Amino acid sequence: MSPALRRHPRFISLEGGEGAGKTTALNAIRAALQAQGCEVVLTREPGGTPLAERIRALVLTPDPEIAAEPLSAEAELLLVFAARAQHVRQVIEPALRRGCYVLSDRFTDSSYAYQGGGRGLEPAWIAELERRAVGLLPGLTLLLDVDVAVGRARANGRDLWPDRIESEQDDFFQRVRAVFRERARQDPTRFRLIDASQDQAGVAAQVVDAINAYLTKEGGNG
Amino acid sequence: MSPALRRHPRFISLEGGEGAGKTTALNAIRAALQAQGCEVVLTREPGGTPLAERIRALVLTPDPEIAAEPLSAEAELLLVFAARAQHVRQVIEPALRRGCYVLSDRFTDSSYAYQGGGRGLEPAWIAELERRAVGLLPGLTLLLDVDVAVGRARANGRDLWPDRIESEQDDFFQRVRAVFRERARQDPTRFRLIDASQDQAGVAAQVVDAINAYLTKEGGNG
Repeated sequence: MSPALRRHPRFISLEGGEGAGKTTALNAIRAALQAQGCEVVLTREPGGTPLAERIRALVLTPDPEIAAEPLSAEAELLLVFAARAQHVRQVIEPALRRGCYVLSDRFTDSSYAYQGGGRGLEPAWIAELERRAVGLLPGLTLLLDVDVAVGRARANGRDLWPDRIESEQDDFFQRVRAVFRERARQDPTRFRLIDASQDQAGVAAQVVDAINAYLTKEGGNG
Repeated sequence: MSPALRRHPRFISLEGGEGAGKTTALNAIRAALQAQGCEVVLTREPGGTPLAERIRALVLTPDPEIAAEPLSAEAELLLVFAARAQHVRQVIEPALRRGCYVLSDRFTDSSYAYQGGGRGLEPAWIAELERRAVGLLPGLTLLLDVDVAVGRARANGRDLWPDRIESEQDDFFQRVRAVFRERARQDPTRFRLIDASQDQAGVAAQVVDAINAYLTKEGGNG
């Protein structure tokens, strides 16, 4: 039997597509947590440990010696989950045990969206990997949702050298967005949907409101 | 539903623990196949493609910047299967389609033995990864079997810098050997058990006999 998923109230993830404004939102969330006296560990996926960052480089921005080798969807999925297994054991769980809040730029929902929705791999397989290699769910997931064309126009203004995933076409990102939205719809206790079509200040205000409401509701549970 | 495993008659794997004499056996097998007019692609795991060789380095011989990070059993398993997914798609299947024989130094049986037996991960999970990410079984697997103490004494005379797996203790390698032998017992059609306690010439003679018997039996099937 696969083990069950544990939801941890002090573990918060931020999800969203290209150009949704994640960086600004991350900084606003961290500041809102710190304003409430919380110690915050800010981290990211794929990556978050030295070894996991090496895996990230293989997936997203391989060096010239290996960039010509097509990366199969299956290998991409397994590499991302290998990095996540390291991230959970080396960074996230130790920080939670120390009593910190952990704020992660992407987590397992991104695998359902990108490798599931985008690449077409079976959600049942992803769920199996999640139970066996991860075992952990965020208490709160903020989903920055924006129209694909709007997000990509923003991202294109910024990325001179798009990575393997940023180089995909619009229909890929439409499928990614659809999976993110469907997961938010199915788990409203964990997800907050943020309207990321607004400007950066508007997005930051929404995420700060969501964080403060979450802290009030969680109270001393963390 | 997970897809089924396909067994390919021209795909041959060589398995065995430390100091079993795989290198000598590989050369003897290749020569025996070539003597019958077969074109042979010799490859190895983990690795076999440029990207998979990078994954191999992360698993076995990480550079100093990341060597201090403990690699979880789960991440090790997923990295090995990510490398295998690339190896199958980029090297093994294209070579089989061209009509070559493919001879691989290790394949999925090593994951059952090392990550299953050695690390204690569930065989059901490994089987799931095999069906979803690999999909392919050798037609013939030669298992070089030798007492752990004998094999390690041979390997220790050779390896000045043992890798992450070679650094494990004897009980780890006892479990590895037990899984290899049990898999051979359960699938006698695919496996040939080779007595690797003999000297190199004796081991080579056994594997050549096994290869020639296999080619006679397979006949034109390949």
